[in-house]
Parts: sequence; C-alpha cells; structure tokens
Amino acid sequence: MRKGVLNPDRDRQIMEHELQETGFSPESEKAKNKYVEEDEDEEDESVEKIFESREVPSWKKQLTLRAFVVSFMLSILFSFIVMKLNLTTGIIPSLNVSAGLLGFFFVKTWTKMLHRSGLLKQPFTRQENTVIQTCVVASSGIAFSGGFGTYLFGMSERIANQSGDGYRGVKNPSLGWIIGFLFVVSFLGLFSVVPLRKIMVIDFKLTYPSGTATAHLINSFHTPLGAKLAKKQVRVLGKFFSISFFWSFFQWFFTGGENCGFSNFPTFGLKAYQYKFYFDFSATYVGVGMICPYIINISVLLGGILSWGIMWPLIETKKGDWFPDNVPSSSMHGLQAYKVFIAVAIILGDGLYNFCKVLSRTLSGLFVQLRGPTTSISRTSFTLEEDPHASPLSPKQSYDDQRRTRFFLKDQIPTWFAVGGYIIIAATSTAILPHMFHQLRWYYILVIYICAPVLAFCNAYGAGLTDWSLASTYGKLAIFTIGAWAGSEHGGMLAGLAACGVMMNIVSTASDLTQDFKTGYLTLSSPKSMFVSQVIGTAMGCVVSPCVFWLFYKAFDDLGLPNSEYPAPFATVYRSMAKLGVEGVSSLPRECLVLCYAFFGVAILINIVKDSLQSRWGRFIPLPMAMAIPFFLGPYFAIDMCVGSLILFIWERVDAANAEAFGTAVASGLICGDGIWSLPSSVLAIAGVNPPVCMKFLSTATNSKFKTLQIT
Amino acid sequence: MRKGVLNPDRDRQIMEHELQETGFSPESEKAKNKYVEEDEDEEDESVEKIFESREVPSWKKQLTLRAFVVSFMLSILFSFIVMKLNLTTGIIPSLNVSAGLLGFFFVKTWTKMLHRSGLLKQPFTRQENTVIQTCVVASSGIAFSGGFGTYLFGMSERIANQSGDGYRGVKNPSLGWIIGFLFVVSFLGLFSVVPLRKIMVIDFKLTYPSGTATAHLINSFHTPLGAKLAKKQVRVLGKFFSISFFWSFFQWFFTGGENCGFSNFPTFGLKAYQYKFYFDFSATYVGVGMICPYIINISVLLGGILSWGIMWPLIETKKGDWFPDNVPSSSMHGLQAYKVFIAVAIILGDGLYNFCKVLSRTLSGLFVQLRGPTTSISRTSFTLEEDPHASPLSPKQSYDDQRRTRFFLKDQIPTWFAVGGYIIIAATSTAILPHMFHQLRWYYILVIYICAPVLAFCNAYGAGLTDWSLASTYGKLAIFTIGAWAGSEHGGMLAGLAACGVMMNIVSTASDLTQDFKTGYLTLSSPKSMFVSQVIGTAMGCVVSPCVFWLFYKAFDDLGLPNSEYPAPFATVYRSMAKLGVEGVSSLPRECLVLCYAFFGVAILINIVKDSLQSRWGRFIPLPMAMAIPFFLGPYFAIDMCVGSLILFIWERVDAANAEAFGTAVASGLICGDGIWSLPSSVLAIAGVNPPVCMKFLSTATNSKFKTLQIT
Repeated sequence: MRKGVLNPDRDRQIMEHELQETGFSPESEKAKNKYVEEDEDEEDESVEKIFESREVPSWKKQLTLRAFVVSFMLSILFSFIVMKLNLTTGIIPSLNVSAGLLGFFFVKTWTKMLHRSGLLKQPFTRQENTVIQTCVVASSGIAFSGGFGTYLFGMSERIANQSGDGYRGVKNPSLGWIIGFLFVVSFLGLFSVVPLRKIMVIDFKLTYPSGTATAHLINSFHTPLGAKLAKKQVRVLGKFFSISFFWSFFQWFFTGGENCGFSNFPTFGLKAYQYKFYFDFSATYVGVGMICPYIINISVLLGGILSWGIMWPLIETKKGDWFPDNVPSSSMHGLQAYKVFIAVAIILGDGLYNFCKVLSRTLSGLFVQLRGPTTSISRTSFTLEEDPHASPLSPKQSYDDQRRTRFFLKDQIPTWFAVGGYIIIAATSTAILPHMFHQLRWYYILVIYICAPVLAFCNAYGAGLTDWSLASTYGKLAIFTIGAWAGSEHGGMLAGLAACGVMMNIVSTASDLTQDFKTGYLTLSSPKSMFVSQVIGTAMGCVVSPCVFWLFYKAFDDLGLPNSEYPAPFATVYRSMAKLGVEGVSSLPRECLVLCYAFFGVAILINIVKDSLQSRWGRFIPLPMAMAIPFFLGPYFAIDMCVGSLILFIWERVDAANAEAFGTAVASGLICGDGIWSLPSSVLAIAGVNPPVCMKFLSTATNSKFKTLQIT
Repeated sequence: MRKGVLNPDRDRQIMEHELQETGFSPESEKAKNKYVEEDEDEEDESVEKIFESREVPSWKKQLTLRAFVVSFMLSILFSFIVMKLNLTTGIIPSLNVSAGLLGFFFVKTWTKMLHRSGLLKQPFTRQENTVIQTCVVASSGIAFSGGFGTYLFGMSERIANQSGDGYRGVKNPSLGWIIGFLFVVSFLGLFSVVPLRKIMVIDFKLTYPSGTATAHLINSFHTPLGAKLAKKQVRVLGKFFSISFFWSFFQWFFTGGENCGFSNFPTFGLKAYQYKFYFDFSATYVGVGMICPYIINISVLLGGILSWGIMWPLIETKKGDWFPDNVPSSSMHGLQAYKVFIAVAIILGDGLYNFCKVLSRTLSGLFVQLRGPTTSISRTSFTLEEDPHASPLSPKQSYDDQRRTRFFLKDQIPTWFAVGGYIIIAATSTAILPHMFHQLRWYYILVIYICAPVLAFCNAYGAGLTDWSLASTYGKLAIFTIGAWAGSEHGGMLAGLAACGVMMNIVSTASDLTQDFKTGYLTLSSPKSMFVSQVIGTAMGCVVSPCVFWLFYKAFDDLGLPNSEYPAPFATVYRSMAKLGVEGVSSLPRECLVLCYAFFGVAILINIVKDSLQSRWGRFIPLPMAMAIPFFLGPYFAIDMCVGSLILFIWERVDAANAEAFGTAVASGLICGDGIWSLPSSVLAIAGVNPPVCMKFLSTATNSKFKTLQIT
C-alpha cells in the first residue's frame, strides 16, 4: 500500500524526507519507537541476539496454509477499504500497521487455540507473519494499481459522458476482461526485480523506510512485551472497528432517497453546504485524518478553501462570459472543466517536480554506489543506514548483518528463472492485450516491456531511497506518450489509459517486492518465500479486487457521478489527462488554460520553496498534490480529516503516551469498520432494500413550500 | 426546589427513606461524603471547631448587597431552567448543588477581585453563602409553585380548548394579574411558620435532609480543601454548560419548520417514532437522568413502554367502538382522554397513599414528641438525629449544638410580628383575590387561610421528617374541595385551580423556610437573615418568574399544545383534575373510568408492596408517580434520562471517584446550558427570526412522492 498517485503516505514521506534528510521517515521512526521501545537498548546491541534461540524455519515451512487463509480474509477486508477510498476521494493512508496487527492477531489466536487443544504442529514465527503481511499488501495493492478508481474506470462510458467526449474510446468494465487484464500485467514487475534483490538490499543497503518499519513492527510483535502491547492495540482497534461499523449502519437507515442522510448534513449552514463545506460524519476520513500528518490535512483544507471558497464562486460570476450559461453544472464545457483541469495541472506540476527530484537522486545515488569500492557497501549522500553499527566504513559487519545476510543468501532464486519468466509473461501479454484493447497495438506493448525493467529498477531504487513509489507518475507518462503516439483517430485515449495500467502495474509491483525483500531480510525470512507470497498475493488480488469493484459497480448506479456517494474523482482526472494528451487543449473553456499554466507553475514553485526552506520552515508549506484533491471534490472530506487531526492533536496534548501507542489503532479501527460496512451496504443495494427513512435538509422557505404542496 | 408534585427529588427521598428508615436520604449522605470527606474525622469531633476562629457577622452584615445581586442573576438563570422543565415534562431535579456551587463561585470571584484591588471590606462568609442559597431557592421556587406549568396555565383558553371544555372557566395569562396574584399569596406561608422555628429546629431536632445537605455543602466550601474541590467542580460545570449551550444553539439552526430538527430524530425508526420512542438529543434530560436515581429513570421508561408501547396501540384498535373514530387525535373525546385520565388516576393514587403515609408519620411523630419530657429534646421512632453525639439520652449537648443553638436563639423574630404579618396579608389577600377571580368567593379564601397554618405546619413537619414536601398534594386537595363547593354552575373549575394556587404557595413556602432555618442553624446564620433573604427571594421570584413565563408564552405560539416543543403536560392534567372534581366522571369515554379505577388501585398497591418489601427488594419496585408522566407525554424523555443513567453507570464503573465528585457538576452543566439557551431562543422567536434549515425525516415513500411533487 505504499504506491500511489494520491497516497498521502507518499506525501508524508516526501515531507518527512525533507524534514530529516535521513531517508528514514518518521512513520518508521514512530513505529519503531512504538513497537520496539522496550528493546530499544538491545536493539542498539542486536535484535537478532534476542531471536537467536528460535529456529528459523525453511522457506517452504514459512509458507503455511493458515498464513494464506488469514491473508485471503484480510485481503478481502483491505480490498473493500482500499476500493471505498479509491472511489470516494482517492486518498489512501498507509494501512500497513493495521494489516500487520490483524495478521498477527488472527494467526496468534489460531495457534493459541490449537496449542490448547494440543494440535499445534508449528509455532507462529515472525517469518510466517512476514509472509502474511507481504501477501495482504500485494493483494490489496492490486485494488489500487488495478486502477478501479483511476485509469480502468476512466475508460467507462459513464466517465466518458461526464467528460463530454461521448462514445470515443470507451470500454465498459466487465468482470471477465478486468480479471484477465490484471493477470496478464501484474506479474511482470515481480520477475523484473528478482535478479536485482541482492544488489538493492545487501550491496546498496537501501533503507526502504516502510519496509524497515514493517519489519520492526513484526519483530516487536514476537517479543513478549511487544505481543502484550499488540494485544491491547488489537482490542482498541476492535472497539473502534465496531463503533465505526455500527455508526455507518445507523447512518444507513436515514439515507432513503437522494441527498438524504448524514453525509448531506449542512453542518455550517446551507450556503456553506452548496460549496461543499460541511462535516459529512464519515468515520473513514476522520480516521484518515488521524493517520495522515497534520500538514497533509491542512493542505487539503487550504486547497478546499482556495478552490470552493474563493475560486469557483469567482469563476461562477463569469458565467455567460467565460463559459456558456446554458450548460448543466456537471458539463465539461462549464465550471466543471475548471475544476478538473486545474486539479490535473497541479497534479502534473507536482508530479513532474518530484519525478525529476527522485530521478536525480536515484541517478546520483547510483553513480556514487557504482563509483565506490567493488564490495559496493557504500553510502550515498542521501541515505543513512538504519543500523549505524553496520556503517560501510567499519571493516567488520555487525552480528545482525552477518546473520541476516547469511539467511538472505541461503535461498537463491535462479536468474534464468526470473529472465525466462519475464520473457514468457511479456510475450503472452503482448499477444493477448491487443485483443482486449484494439487501440493498443502490439508494438506499443513491446516498447513498454522493453523499457519496463529499467523503469521498474528506477522505481524500486527510488522507493528504497525516499520511500516514494512513483508508479502513478510513470503511469501518467504512459498515458501521454502512448496516447499521443496512437493519436486521436486511432483511439489514443483508450490506448493511453490501457498503457497507463500496464506501466503502473509493473513499476508498482516491482517496488513492492523489493520492499518486501528488505522486510524479509530484517526478519530472516527467505527471499523465496517472499517471492512466492507476493505471487500468491498478487493472484488473490487479481481475483478479489475486480470482484469487490464489481460489487460496488453493480450496487451503486450512480458510481462515478459527481455529488454521488462514490464520485470516483480520479477516474475523471485520468480520462481528462488522456484527453489532454490526445486532443490537446483546444476544447478547454476561456481562461482555463491560463489558469492551468499558472497552477502548474505554482505547484512546482511551492515544491521548490518547500525544499529550499529546509525542514524548519519548509514543513509549514502545504503540499500541492494534497491541495489539488478538493479542487474537484470539494472540501467536505478535508473537514473530516481536520476533525481527525484535531482529535489526535488534543489527545496528544492530554495523554501523549496513549495517543502515541493507540492513535494508529483507533484510526485503523475507524477506517476498517466504515470500510467493511460497504460490503453489507452494497449487498443491500443489490438486493433492492431501501433504507426506511430519509433525513432531509431543506431551507425553511423550501420546507414551507413543501408543506403547501402536501396540503393541496 | 424541594417542592413539587413531580419533583423526582421527592420520589427519590421517599424511596430512600424506605431504603434506610433513617430519615436521612442518600442524597444528603452523598453530598456529605462528597463535600466533607476531608473533614469527616473532624466532623465527628466538631465542625464548628474548624470555624471557631472565624467571626460570625451580625445578621445585618450577613445580608450584603453583593449577595442579592448574585442571587438575582442566579434566580433568573434558575427560573429559566425550572420554567423550561415545567413546560416540557414537569420533572424537576434537585438543583440545590448547582445553585450552591454557582453562588459560591460568583461571590468568591467577586471578593477575590476586590481583595486584589484592596477594596474588600468584608470577607465572604458561609453565612452570606447561605443567604444567597436561600434567596435563589426561594426565588426559583416560585417558578414551580407559581403553577406556570400546572394550575395557572391550566386556566388558559389554550388548555381549556384541548380539554374539550370550551370557554367554561377560562382566565388567560397576563403579566399584570399573575404578578399581583403571586405577591398576594406567596408571603403568607413565611409568616405562618416563623413562630414555630425553635420547636421544629431545636426542640424537635427534625432532620430536613435537603437542608442539612445544603448546609454541609456550604460548610465544606469554606474549608480550604472543599474550596479546591468546588473550584474544580465549577470548572467541570462550566465546561458542560458551554457544551450544552452550544449544542442547543447548533440544534436550533435545523428547526426551521414544524417537526424539524434533532428533537424529531427517529433514532429507532419511524414506526417507533410514531409512538414517541426516540432519543431527542436534549442535553437537559440527559442531565436530569444523571441526577435522578436509577429507579426513577427505569420507572419512567417502564411507564412509557407500558403506555405507548402496549396500552395505547391496543386501545387504538378499539377506535369506533370505545370512542368515536372521527375525532382529531388531540380531542378529549378520543384516545387523549385515556392518556390524561389514566395518568391523573395514577398521580392521585400515588398522592393519596403518600399523603396518608406522611400524615400518619407526622401525627405519630408529633404524638411521641409531645408526650416526651418537657425539654422536648426527644427522638421519634422515625427520626434519627444527624449528630449522634447530641443524642437526647446524653445529658449534655455537644460543642456544635451549643454553639449553633446560641446563634440560632440570638436573633429573635417577635411572635407579634409574625402573627400580625399573617393577619394583614391574609386580609389583603382575601379582599383582592375575589376581584381577580370572580368565581373564588371571599369565604372560600377565608376558610383556606384559617386552615392554612395547620397545613403549613404539617407540611413543614413532614418535610422535616421525610424530606418530602406535599405542597402539590395539598393543592390538589384544594382543587377538589373548593371546586366541588363552588360547583359547576359557579365556575368551580376556575375556583378550584385558583384555590390550588393559594394553597400550594402557602404550604410550599412554609416548608422551604423551615428547611432554610435548619440550614441557617447548621451554618450559624441568623434566623432573621434567613427570613429576610427568603422574603427578598420570594419577591424576586414573584417578578422574575412571571416575566420568564411571559417570554416563553409570547415566543412560542404552540406553548401547551401536545407534540409541540413545550407541551406543558401538567397544565392539562391539573385542568382535567379540576374538571373531574367539578363535573364528575360522566364525560369520560367508554372503559376509561374502569381503567382509571384500576390504575388508581394499582398505584396504591405498588406503593404498599414497595413499602412492605423493605429496602432489599423494595428498591427494585418502580415508582407509580414516575411511571405516570410518560403516559401522557410519551417515552422520548425517558430515553434521554436513561441515556443519562447509562453514562453515569458506565462512568461509575470506570472511574468511581471522579463520577462521585463530578457527576452532579456535569449534570448541572448540561441542564443549565440547555436551560439558558431558552432565553436567546425565545428572544429569537419573538423577533421573528426563523432558523435557516429544516432537518426533516420522511419515510422513503413520502420522500419520493415529495420529489414527484417538486418536479410537477
């Protein structure tokens, strides 16, 4: 779950990168403090000394059936959550901690039960825990990189109609081709980085902050004190899970009709509600706000105020002048165009800046690495080893490093296997894809697959340095290049979107797997078991995610429409980007292009200022990417997130220790409970069960009119 | 505030009386524990030893201007709260603690400020605090005994129309005659008990649990530790005051129209809402639920389930058989009659039983007292001295008693003054009242005034034994006797209601003043200052309460109508009682009389069972009086109260110490904040400001119909 255009986790990490310049994000720092506090001292000594007495199972024994059963359950849970987030705002916080916690909890309960009944054959090890974590993250990762909220749904007729480009380049979702498509494109990334694992993890000693944090989390779970804290956290998570679930359930009863229910509560009055300033009582986004760092929440709110509070009302006054006044509000020839394209401009500006930044770091990092001694154990100017004792300058390796390296190199995946696998899958894929998308010629795909390993390596390396997966940026690159290559006449829009999918899947799974290798390295899990777990997880995801999406798609007729419960904002954004790439800027309303240029520039400028100010003041500069999201959607979820921030802020002031230890658990509980409610809620919608009550908000004037109507 | 038909405080005390058979209610016990815990040991020694060094000011110096300024402010605050409670459900919890706390807080702040600026001439003493408490309770007591929610408003045309007796015996409220009426009848009670104060307080050593608790509270405030706790409690009260106030303010915005807003939230669905089962988000009744003992809340809920959950739906099925099916739902010829008269039957049954019980105790107590030694310091079988050291069997008085008795007897109010005052006021009153109510002949009044001193003494004595003021029962007695005497042709209904007012005011002020004498005795306050303070407080109340009522009356056009925000249920109940007394039972619909007899009997039976089971099981038997209230109103406020109970229950389980210390402060804050919001809310209503939004709850079917209507 560390991938993504709009993964605030990523933004957090960039920000924190600037903050610390260590390549070690506070999330992992925090997680470390949280979970290994009790053995902090020993950690300085050696983590592996603690685990010395425990036998490390062989790679085949690390892959247990129970692990995959639990992974499957959790992957369904997280697919629902990620899908819901995809389709509502596209903001997906890091769910690693909750995945780790729940995986630990389920297998621990299971083994405890077996142990009591005397049937336990194999104790629960941290290697097995790592396998679960890897599998769940791989599986629910597909819910993001499958593009259900972005490129894939952007191909549909519904989004096409909204973008005002009728039936040009449309492919409606259907369970069959989506599963096929995902199977064909999702495994390539895995094979592309397998041969490079030793270079990345052992030779370059890349940090992979998220992977390291996950490993620390898992290591701590398997110490007695850590297990105790984890148990408490699970209890807190469970409590807030239930609260959140029942709150959503309760809310459901009042949504019988359009614009009914708590999600339309005009908390600050009807005028503010018109401009989407209201608190929509969503437990999910309160939780998201608690997980995301303050600056993200404030950026989102600022973006909302700037756009819906100032710009849109101003542009609305130009109605009839800048754009025709007889178009419906959702038309791309009216105000909607400004909303979408200015957001696109900011996203592209921010993306471009960060792409250049990460790429330059990647290259300079690589340059330093390769120029160094042949052992390659050197440090780049941007990374700091997570273990200072294993400094490359010190001639001898620490005990931990020795032991970890030995286990990491024990099980080898042959290079011929990786290369062969890549070629076979690439060939199959090149053969099949053009049949799915006629607009996507086989030679486009071939070109992508030839470039892909390099891009996959770049992304994996960049993520190792900065914890920031650029997958969606590579995807956007594919939209523009392939789209323009195919051209408007030959369905360039669809070709671009499909190419985006191919590209995103490769680069994101590549960086994920490398990250998992790092986690495996730190928990003495075999690279083989990591690879197998990732493959199984990906396969699960290729089936589970489309099914979950299909449930949403069938259950909610207004999925993807603005102002609906699931507006899927980034589907429109991606389609608009494809349109921009293929057809150029000619169809934009007046002054829209100027505004887009301005915001594109401003986004880059803000990033430059942020970086040049350094951590002290830079951390107070908002993030353009986060500011762009409410431009299109409205600031209502920003208000939810700020409420979450506020709760955490007060909690930290009142009781810092507990806030530190249980904040993430509370937030995860809120997100999971609300997320899993979408399962029964969509089942109810499919079964045609209507909620009994409509909680409506009318202005007093409308209400009295309604009364008159009722009487007549 | 210890008076009242429906004062749950009273019910609590009865219940608790049974519980302990000591005459010392747990409320006072609790208050004592709460406030004097720190000097519990010394208390066993002597409270007055602690205060020995502090000079007791003369009675004139106890009556400071600042005390009356603060009293005036607080009396306005509490008049609003009591009025709101009167007009919504008639349940008025004990607000003594909040009155004491706030009085202490304001004068303490004031003296602190003066002290800092060097202008303080006189320190804040507990005597002054007692003066404030007395004045506030006397003043806001008028808001209850003035009958704005009972007899006085029951005379109005609006209530008469609802009771279905058109224009017979109607007198609409008007600021002028109400103030005049209150001035004429409210002071008599004071003069009637003044000569008996020594007998009650010193000779009989009556306990007056509420008065004793108040004294303990005030004494504790003036010890350093007690002042510290009080400060914390004031902070908690203030916090919840603001929360409650702003919550009501927020709710207001959504009430633009009929049946709009949170108070119509169908928490358990629309079907349950139809039968008034819903949580109406009223902070007041959540607070009331926190102050009332659990059994009261459960009784109210049980009553609601019995009536609105079972009986009314069943009786509704008899529509067209038992009562005509073409009458509106609010007509007294339909279901409404069952609701009102069954409630009246229970209230009368419960009242009669308790009247007999208290009267028999009063008489037997008196008998024992008077048969005893001439010093009269003896104990009845029902009372226990609050101070075991001062046992009548021990020949010498404790230090505390000596000192208290000395101060109590220092300032004498001459008997000629009391008797003279009584005769003059009675004469004036007899002359004036018939001009106000033509139906109330002068000889009725004369009879009342001749009996009144005896009844006042009985009530004061009974309250001293049981903490239970029977004022409203004496009032009902007057309704029936005077009403029947005047007869239907001579406006007996109005005569009965007016006589009720005269009677209630006398007996309730009488027991209040005696209670205050006890408080004064325990805080070394002079009886003179108590008397003056009570007179000033009563005078304040005679002006403030009618004005507050007038504000409500002018602001809310639907005041007194069922299903409105302020249904004033007991106005209808009192009028129905008057009707019953004057016209008999002939107008009741079929089977209603049988049901009334049954419930009258059941109410008495439940009381007998409760008393005979003793405390162990008896405390689990519900209170008929509490059960009757939702019969007419519906169980929605019972649900609020149970929520309050639940909160307190959980709090007590989680953190007993804090729940004990701050429970009452939280509840008072909730009640006060919501209560004082009724000031701005009625001002807004008078100014014609409509809330902007209507939060409406429609069934999904109605909503879709509404949509169709909107389109056409």
